Amino acid sequence: MVSTAAEGAQNPTHKYDPDFTQHVIDTCGPKTSPRFKQIFAAGIRHLHDFAREIDLTPEEWLAGVKFFNETGKLWAESDGKRNEMHRLSDIVGLESLVTEIANYVQTEDKTYTPTSAAILGPFWSPNAPWRQLGDSIIQDEHKNGLVTYMHGIVKDLVTQQPIPNVTFDMWQASSNGKYDFQDPENQSDNNLRGKFKTDEKGEYRLYCLRPTAYSLPQDGPSWTLLQAVDRHPMRPAHIHLMVTHDDYKPVITQIYPKDDPWLATDTVFAVKDDLVVDFVPITETPNGMKEHTGPGGKATRELELNIVLAPKGMAINAAKPVEH
Amino acid sequence: MVSTAAEGAQNPTHKYDPDFTQHVIDTCGPKTSPRFKQIFAAGIRHLHDFAREIDLTPEEWLAGVKFFNETGKLWAESDGKRNEMHRLSDIVGLESLVTEIANYVQTEDKTYTPTSAAILGPFWSPNAPWRQLGDSIIQDEHKNGLVTYMHGIVKDLVTQQPIPNVTFDMWQASSNGKYDFQDPENQSDNNLRGKFKTDEKGEYRLYCLRPTAYSLPQDGPSWTLLQAVDRHPMRPAHIHLMVTHDDYKPVITQIYPKDDPWLATDTVFAVKDDLVVDFVPITETPNGMKEHTGPGGKATRELELNIVLAPKGMAINAAKPVEH
Repeated sequence: MVSTAAEGAQNPTHKYDPDFTQHVIDTCGPKTSPRFKQIFAAGIRHLHDFAREIDLTPEEWLAGVKFFNETGKLWAESDGKRNEMHRLSDIVGLESLVTEIANYVQTEDKTYTPTSAAILGPFWSPNAPWRQLGDSIIQDEHKNGLVTYMHGIVKDLVTQQPIPNVTFDMWQASSNGKYDFQDPENQSDNNLRGKFKTDEKGEYRLYCLRPTAYSLPQDGPSWTLLQAVDRHPMRPAHIHLMVTHDDYKPVITQIYPKDDPWLATDTVFAVKDDLVVDFVPITETPNGMKEHTGPGGKATRELELNIVLAPKGMAINAAKPVEH
Repeated sequence: MVSTAAEGAQNPTHKYDPDFTQHVIDTCGPKTSPRFKQIFAAGIRHLHDFAREIDLTPEEWLAGVKFFNETGKLWAESDGKRNEMHRLSDIVGLESLVTEIANYVQTEDKTYTPTSAAILGPFWSPNAPWRQLGDSIIQDEHKNGLVTYMHGIVKDLVTQQPIPNVTFDMWQASSNGKYDFQDPENQSDNNLRGKFKTDEKGEYRLYCLRPTAYSLPQDGPSWTLLQAVDRHPMRPAHIHLMVTHDDYKPVITQIYPKDDPWLATDTVFAVKDDLVVDFVPITETPNGMKEHTGPGGKATRELELNIVLAPKGMAINAAKPVEH
């Protein structure tokens, strides 16, 4: 094999050809974009180190080739509707990690940090309807869903002042664990979805359901992997949020009831401490709450959730970690 | 996120959550097989380190998901006939590396090493016919192919003695760069394939073509990646060999003409120094050579190639590198 000697000095710890990996990286031609070369080089280094560290066998490599082929096959056969490759990257923590990287913010003042991000997941819709403050996103009947009055203030990370005119977009599965477009027999379009605008006090208020835990599909390559590592397929109950304003970095996140049994073992690793919230039984009517009159009747739970947004100009990916 | 602190101590160099990767690894349940846990843990560590080292963005991650989906789609749509995921792992050097790992042999005597292995590739056939020593594997007419008399001895690595009754299985593309089953219009079944047995002196002899370089397919995800890293899609000319005997470790390999222009940049990284050989113009008739009478007429090249096999019991994957 013709190759350079550069890697031999860097990585003399394994017994195999010390020049091979650098040779593969060095095949990049001059027209390779600098960013792509960086991604390619890091990918090759980690892929090769992985194979050498565990003495990957030809049979295991071929099993891996087949596994990824089968994962792509589900996507091809469902016409892109079932993105099993996306799900696979979720159950190994990759989407969660990419989300952390993208939302890393360094602040001088360690007292406040923006609301943590969590993965978008495959169920957001660009077609959610605008609704009025105080309205409900519950369009359809549900079994044992607990109607919840949810409200709070969206604040500026730096000034701690409320932010008016923020878009507060939310979506959730129904009490059977399914989103509207997974469940056309029981749910109308945009059931449990809605977009709201904060008022002049930076406040939002609405009705939703206390969310319900559900399982990832128990077929396909992701389920095969979960079984191979002896893991359950459960996501804790959660509500998805996408909170945006032209002057601020968006927050895409999820919130979780504090007594959910799957918090510590969420199969897609999307739970963070500041996203765990309390759905409190209603004992007295909060300020600004009007009667809920849609499916499910009166609200029996209250959730107060404030959101902190970082101004768009704020430096990200600085050298030191945020202290939580 | 709920997690252990184990990785924080091991890997304090990045600014992101120091416990995340170990947390994902620690989700493996008690029923995970020890080998699978080892593969999973190494895979997760390298995948996460890759993402953190290059600050992988959500857009890049989604592009990667789509790329692997498209790769699996080709396999699904061709009913498994076009294994693009296999090809992808070849152009990033993974099959070549796995082949090196599987064939790593440590010998006390550094004077001799077994013949190097090279990747099997997708064109071996279990149905190649047995042929007699001295016969030709050239069944069909070819344009500009150079008929070659190929011969040599198969020897024992330890004793250096010839090994009789070795199965010498070989296959090659025709002078248009295509294998029989890629090219039904020009080639009959098993054209340029054949299995031979070495004689009592460990010798084989046959007629084949001097091989011709060819390109990988110039469509699909592998070609997309090759273009992104500004690489050509060429394989150097080669003949495939699978040399087997019950008492020896098999040698699956390829040989290459020494004047091929693609040797240093083989797109699947399968060239090793001891596999580069000389197709010498015939000036006098070698011992044991009979006249070639099939398509292409007289032989105009001679190739002498000896093969060295390691006994099956020999220790592999020992601690120190083989010195070549």
